[in-house]
Amino acid sequence: MSLRLADGLAGALPGSRLITDPDVLAGVGRDQAQWAPAGVALAALRARSGEEVSRAVAACAELGIPVVPRGAGTGLSGGANAVDGCLVLDLSKMDSIVEIDVENMLAVVQPGVVNNALKAAVAEHGLWYPPDPASAPWSTIGGNVSTNAGGLCCLKYGVTRDYVLGLEAVVGGPGGAYGTRLRLGRRTTKGVAGYDLTGLFVGSEGTLGVITEVTLRLRPARPEAPRTVVGAFGGLAGAGRAVAELTSCGLVPAALELLDRVCLEAVEDWRHLGIGASAEAMLLASVDTPGAAGDEEAEAVRAVFLRSGADWAELSGDPVEAEALFEARRLAYPALERLGPVITEDLCVPRSEVPEMLARIEEIGRRHGVRIATIAHAGDGNLHPLLLVPPGDDTARTAAEAAFEDLLTAAIGLRGTVTGEHGVGLLKRRGMQRELPLGVRAMQRAVKQALDPLDLFNPGKVTGDDPGL
Amino acid sequence: MSLRLADGLAGALPGSRLITDPDVLAGVGRDQAQWAPAGVALAALRARSGEEVSRAVAACAELGIPVVPRGAGTGLSGGANAVDGCLVLDLSKMDSIVEIDVENMLAVVQPGVVNNALKAAVAEHGLWYPPDPASAPWSTIGGNVSTNAGGLCCLKYGVTRDYVLGLEAVVGGPGGAYGTRLRLGRRTTKGVAGYDLTGLFVGSEGTLGVITEVTLRLRPARPEAPRTVVGAFGGLAGAGRAVAELTSCGLVPAALELLDRVCLEAVEDWRHLGIGASAEAMLLASVDTPGAAGDEEAEAVRAVFLRSGADWAELSGDPVEAEALFEARRLAYPALERLGPVITEDLCVPRSEVPEMLARIEEIGRRHGVRIATIAHAGDGNLHPLLLVPPGDDTARTAAEAAFEDLLTAAIGLRGTVTGEHGVGLLKRRGMQRELPLGVRAMQRAVKQALDPLDLFNPGKVTGDDPGL
Repeated sequence: MSLRLADGLAGALPGSRLITDPDVLAGVGRDQAQWAPAGVALAALRARSGEEVSRAVAACAELGIPVVPRGAGTGLSGGANAVDGCLVLDLSKMDSIVEIDVENMLAVVQPGVVNNALKAAVAEHGLWYPPDPASAPWSTIGGNVSTNAGGLCCLKYGVTRDYVLGLEAVVGGPGGAYGTRLRLGRRTTKGVAGYDLTGLFVGSEGTLGVITEVTLRLRPARPEAPRTVVGAFGGLAGAGRAVAELTSCGLVPAALELLDRVCLEAVEDWRHLGIGASAEAMLLASVDTPGAAGDEEAEAVRAVFLRSGADWAELSGDPVEAEALFEARRLAYPALERLGPVITEDLCVPRSEVPEMLARIEEIGRRHGVRIATIAHAGDGNLHPLLLVPPGDDTARTAAEAAFEDLLTAAIGLRGTVTGEHGVGLLKRRGMQRELPLGVRAMQRAVKQALDPLDLFNPGKVTGDDPGL
Repeated sequence: MSLRLADGLAGALPGSRLITDPDVLAGVGRDQAQWAPAGVALAALRARSGEEVSRAVAACAELGIPVVPRGAGTGLSGGANAVDGCLVLDLSKMDSIVEIDVENMLAVVQPGVVNNALKAAVAEHGLWYPPDPASAPWSTIGGNVSTNAGGLCCLKYGVTRDYVLGLEAVVGGPGGAYGTRLRLGRRTTKGVAGYDLTGLFVGSEGTLGVITEVTLRLRPARPEAPRTVVGAFGGLAGAGRAVAELTSCGLVPAALELLDRVCLEAVEDWRHLGIGASAEAMLLASVDTPGAAGDEEAEAVRAVFLRSGADWAELSGDPVEAEALFEARRLAYPALERLGPVITEDLCVPRSEVPEMLARIEEIGRRHGVRIATIAHAGDGNLHPLLLVPPGDDTARTAAEAAFEDLLTAAIGLRGTVTGEHGVGLLKRRGMQRELPLGVRAMQRAVKQALDPLDLFNPGKVTGDDPGL
């Protein structure tokens, strides 16, 4: 049956090269969510154009083959994982920057453009694309848009959603026959002509259609290198207090990151950046307000660190040193992955609850005997406790799974959310079901059914598999 | 028939006082879009609580009575206008500020809270709610959210949508029986648990449900009063060039407003603010970057004004003077309304097209013999040409209607939109139908049908009355 379907698909797409090699399919059939299940794809296609995506979607609709779009596969929730018998639509080769409109500070890009590649290209024109997930060297704009990726500088500059003005997407259902290419949104800075379908597609994880082009708002380049403030704390509690205190003082650094001792040691062991891994917790703040006001702001941040119990706190204007510190932050996840399977949480709580959430993370780790490393976009209240499991240890894995659920419950109890920026995918579906009332999930499902009546686009993700519906 | 319905409604809402006086109904049955049609409401209800809204919506669903929500009625597109036989649900008395959470920089408010009242309340805690439509002294947060209102400072600080974290809404359909109160969104700064239904409700003009509470993100108070730069130009072309030039220099003032001579004279004749009404066009920029960097930025703005052909350009740090200038901007619309019926455009074009759009406005006014006054959030490319018609002059009105359509066509031709911040309502429906492809309109309609299967909420607005669907 599936061979016949694959032949049918190949026949319907004469100019396209379908991948059917099982090893390759297994590789493109999952993202980096190590514990999320992945199905077996029927085939994969590395699309080269919106036109090719359109033909592939039309053929899949005709043949009843689900479509699972993917970018670089750096996702952490299983959102890009294959479902059985699907076509994996790999968009990473659609990596052209179509236009950089300097006068209007916007860029039009294909979905496969890598985040850092876009940053570099617009920087040549004195412009800046702020969203900076830690995966920025590898992850694609299409994936960033589909998960509404956050990053380090969202505290001051917002998330991906704040930069998406418009999209081209291949849709089906009310928008036209499956395979129809439609332009949503606009090129203007403002616009309210009808419902915000662009915003609805951002973060929808490929479940409403396939994004084939993105129009992004840009900012002027930062006038100067940011100042960095580092604080070393003897415990997570003090670092948590500093985060809450900064917010209540009205201090909004461009970034405010937290790394605990496990993270610091893992990075230091791997890369020897000389960041000093002896603190129990480190806070990194980046202040980019220009001129003397920025100096004052950085000094105020340092004072809050000290007042909240930092063992030491230093201010650095040296871009090399600052880059090493933030590099350590970006490397924390891969450094920990080297030690064994990692399961990543993506909790977000009100900022005032950061100290309490950090305490509960420690308590839950202790109670389940699970080693937890925590990195956090602390200023956003967005915490990534990383559960570390020795390879092949099933007991440890079971304990980690129990801890995972308790962490979700704790975040919901503090009026937080189970996913701040990674998306629901497969891993956070149960958590989302606990977080959101049934009526809200039913509204989400109704939107999905209205816009994708065949359930062709990335079925089972986000609103899928909800026993309440 | 309608009497029986009104009795039925009164019977179903024993604790509520229904308004049925025809004069009062006529008053609450329309907003400030002078040329938009308005139907005759069956009754109106000044709701006092979410619970009362819930009961009213349930009763209306039972009896088949459309629900038209309204705030202060300052809308400019007819979005709050009654449809025949509806219940007007006036939310202006639900005006409590439920919570100001200083630690997390957010506020929870009922929909009837007036924008400026919220600003004043949070200012006491050293916080700031930036969105500032010119109607801020009167318009409500519920109305601001429902139209995704913009304002003067969106250039740097974004629109209403950027500040809405969550909502409580009374919905029907998949969310539960009509009258169900649901909480959408979150209290955290970030969150991607499912589709962005909050964002979908923002700007939906009451067509998806009735908003009964809003959770808003706040910012720290501005550290100091902004500097103001005023430039007087001998023609609109030079002012337009200055706007485009500022953007391409990467200068982003907090506000960049344009007033033409007709506006300046109307304000001066009415209020005698002494702003000097002799220029053909005036640009007002507000620069709030702190410290010396802000001084440099203001000076750079002044230099661009002069380079683009300003007759003169002055920098002022005097808050009283600055307030008078921006007061003139806010008074432009009521000042022009004093002269006779005004029809308001709300075009938004890419900023580089502002000079061309200004030229076309002049040309269209000349060609149709229509007097057009233009105020603009120029930095956003958001232009409000106001078509002035002598009272009772039907020929002039016909000419103005033709000019209105030509202006929409011109904006669409420059890759702009027919509404930047006022909403579609009734007045911009035809324009939206010309701007958006049929498939996109069909997707919007599908979303509306999925979330409001009875078409109970504000029927006919936004996606209503589309001959293509």
